[in-house]
Amino acid sequence: MRHLAPAALHRITTRIFEAVGTPEDIASDVADVLVDNHLAGHDSHGVLRIAQYLQWIREGRIVPHARPEVLVDTSSTALVRGHMGFGQSVALVATDLATAKAKRNGVAAVSVVDLGHTGRLGAFTERAARQGVVMFMTVGSGGPAMTVPFGGAEPSLGTNPIAFSLPRGSQDPVTLDYATSAIANGKLMLARAKGEPVPEGSIVDREGAPTTDPEDYFAGGHLLPFGGHKGYALAVIADLLAGPLAGADSYSGAVMETGVFMFAVASDAFRPERDYLRAMDAVTARITGVPPAPGFDDVLLPGEPEARTHRARLNDGIPLPEETLAELTQIAADLGLDIDALDVPLPSGGGTPTRRQ
Amino acid sequence: MRHLAPAALHRITTRIFEAVGTPEDIASDVADVLVDNHLAGHDSHGVLRIAQYLQWIREGRIVPHARPEVLVDTSSTALVRGHMGFGQSVALVATDLATAKAKRNGVAAVSVVDLGHTGRLGAFTERAARQGVVMFMTVGSGGPAMTVPFGGAEPSLGTNPIAFSLPRGSQDPVTLDYATSAIANGKLMLARAKGEPVPEGSIVDREGAPTTDPEDYFAGGHLLPFGGHKGYALAVIADLLAGPLAGADSYSGAVMETGVFMFAVASDAFRPERDYLRAMDAVTARITGVPPAPGFDDVLLPGEPEARTHRARLNDGIPLPEETLAELTQIAADLGLDIDALDVPLPSGGGTPTRRQ
Repeated sequence: MRHLAPAALHRITTRIFEAVGTPEDIASDVADVLVDNHLAGHDSHGVLRIAQYLQWIREGRIVPHARPEVLVDTSSTALVRGHMGFGQSVALVATDLATAKAKRNGVAAVSVVDLGHTGRLGAFTERAARQGVVMFMTVGSGGPAMTVPFGGAEPSLGTNPIAFSLPRGSQDPVTLDYATSAIANGKLMLARAKGEPVPEGSIVDREGAPTTDPEDYFAGGHLLPFGGHKGYALAVIADLLAGPLAGADSYSGAVMETGVFMFAVASDAFRPERDYLRAMDAVTARITGVPPAPGFDDVLLPGEPEARTHRARLNDGIPLPEETLAELTQIAADLGLDIDALDVPLPSGGGTPTRRQ
Repeated sequence: MRHLAPAALHRITTRIFEAVGTPEDIASDVADVLVDNHLAGHDSHGVLRIAQYLQWIREGRIVPHARPEVLVDTSSTALVRGHMGFGQSVALVATDLATAKAKRNGVAAVSVVDLGHTGRLGAFTERAARQGVVMFMTVGSGGPAMTVPFGGAEPSLGTNPIAFSLPRGSQDPVTLDYATSAIANGKLMLARAKGEPVPEGSIVDREGAPTTDPEDYFAGGHLLPFGGHKGYALAVIADLLAGPLAGADSYSGAVMETGVFMFAVASDAFRPERDYLRAMDAVTARITGVPPAPGFDDVLLPGEPEARTHRARLNDGIPLPEETLAELTQIAADLGLDIDALDVPLPSGGGTPTRRQ
């Protein structure tokens, strides 16, 4: 495990995407989001994705130089077409548009269509929240069906993620950010490797029958929505908002038939911001101010684990396994970049990013 | 069990509330919602509540003649103060305001404060959906804490319900409508009576330790959010939207310190309605078009069980236990109303409401 300074990881990520024809501002947007995901502890949405994105660029599934076009632009709504640009960059543009409209008019709804993979939604909703705007976001299931509907024997849903963030002034936002399926692929692989069962209600076997044996999943089984019929309902709503409402299927050129739906409300839409913030302090203190259950140290707010990881990694650097760093170095070398000249390595436990002398 | 015509149940409900000083239009609004809840099969949010509401009127917790006041009214936002009027009536006014704004400007956010108990949220979100508007709604926890946060040993949340409805033209809307707690009180009482365990992850005992024994709940235990940490996050978001964002705590006269937050988007905000409806048909057919799992007849959309019950009860009448009907008759008699003269009883299985000759 090596620890990299966030700025160094940002630099190498930007350079790699620039080397395949991405304008610097777009490459930097993508790097912003990938590094933010690492800082939040969601390494599966970080530089591990670079090889896949480069592959998608070669296949035309991401157009690195594409710039989003705003097709509808009213005082409180916008429809953004990404022309298959990087999902991270297109979604940042849409986030900032929704944020600006909400700050001006109290509320906004934005649809985004024809864009690449966005990754972790919290990166966008938290960006809005840090500007004083409550944001909700969902992404449709463009990919193969993986999740069975409640009462179904075969999959018909994606992982249909949703996110909500609410501002807390200078404190970290409260953020809900998750797939509506019960378990992540990574956790299934881990349980399989350890020979351990997964929690009840996470998966079904290939016949659609409930199981807790991860082997059943890898033998043709499927994911369940989290929380039974309640999570199923949420998965459906996410699918419908990002699909039929956002309207991604109207753009036949889109390679990923998936859309993004965002709504945004200014935190001072209904009363002065100081009253909102005071109430946020009071209510969040009430929610978390109970004794922990056996086996827990604390009651945490949604998003608090990520915020803690963010603070720790800003200080200690982002830990990357040797094999990930080797892959990154190889990708860079293949593109004619010298990763060492970019000052990527940082001593484990080091504080601030290294600077070139 | 007796079956009453919806119109008859509406009439007696309206007359009872009129008899305690409620203007006819408000009494009729309240009856609309209570009868709609029965039609949806949610009898716990129907006429069973009348005795409690009359008690609350006597205590000043509902002001039957109060009319809502619109304190903020912009093109896309509104803040409605209920002056402790019936929650059902105030929320209907707010729903129609949000619907009208969304139809005019694409999107709306509405906060409602200082109102009585609203009951089932789907009654409001479906009303918006039947007018072509996607609606999200949440109600804050004004009452005592009943639900423990994830990792907590004592309760700090309410049951924090949320609802989403999306229109489907002349078909029933897709509706998510539930408490973010894992189990309803009624189901706990039923399990206790049968001596059966409740599903894992529903309740904790008085020490905050997980249990499936309903006796542990009635011995000082508490509810869990549905779906573990994911449902907990949703409960917190619901609490914060309807609380700090909606701003109910700014109205010190309010007896119930709970607010309502609504978000509305026109279904044609991003493309022509016919394209939206076509995509809704396609996506809902894809989601439900898989074989059912063992033990299930069908894969249903969220809200479909309620819609089926609605159709059946429109035809067969609303079943009420004899004791509920006796209580209703007594309440009416105490107010000087002759329930029989109101044509309440309807032969079981009868079709249309009886009419006075």
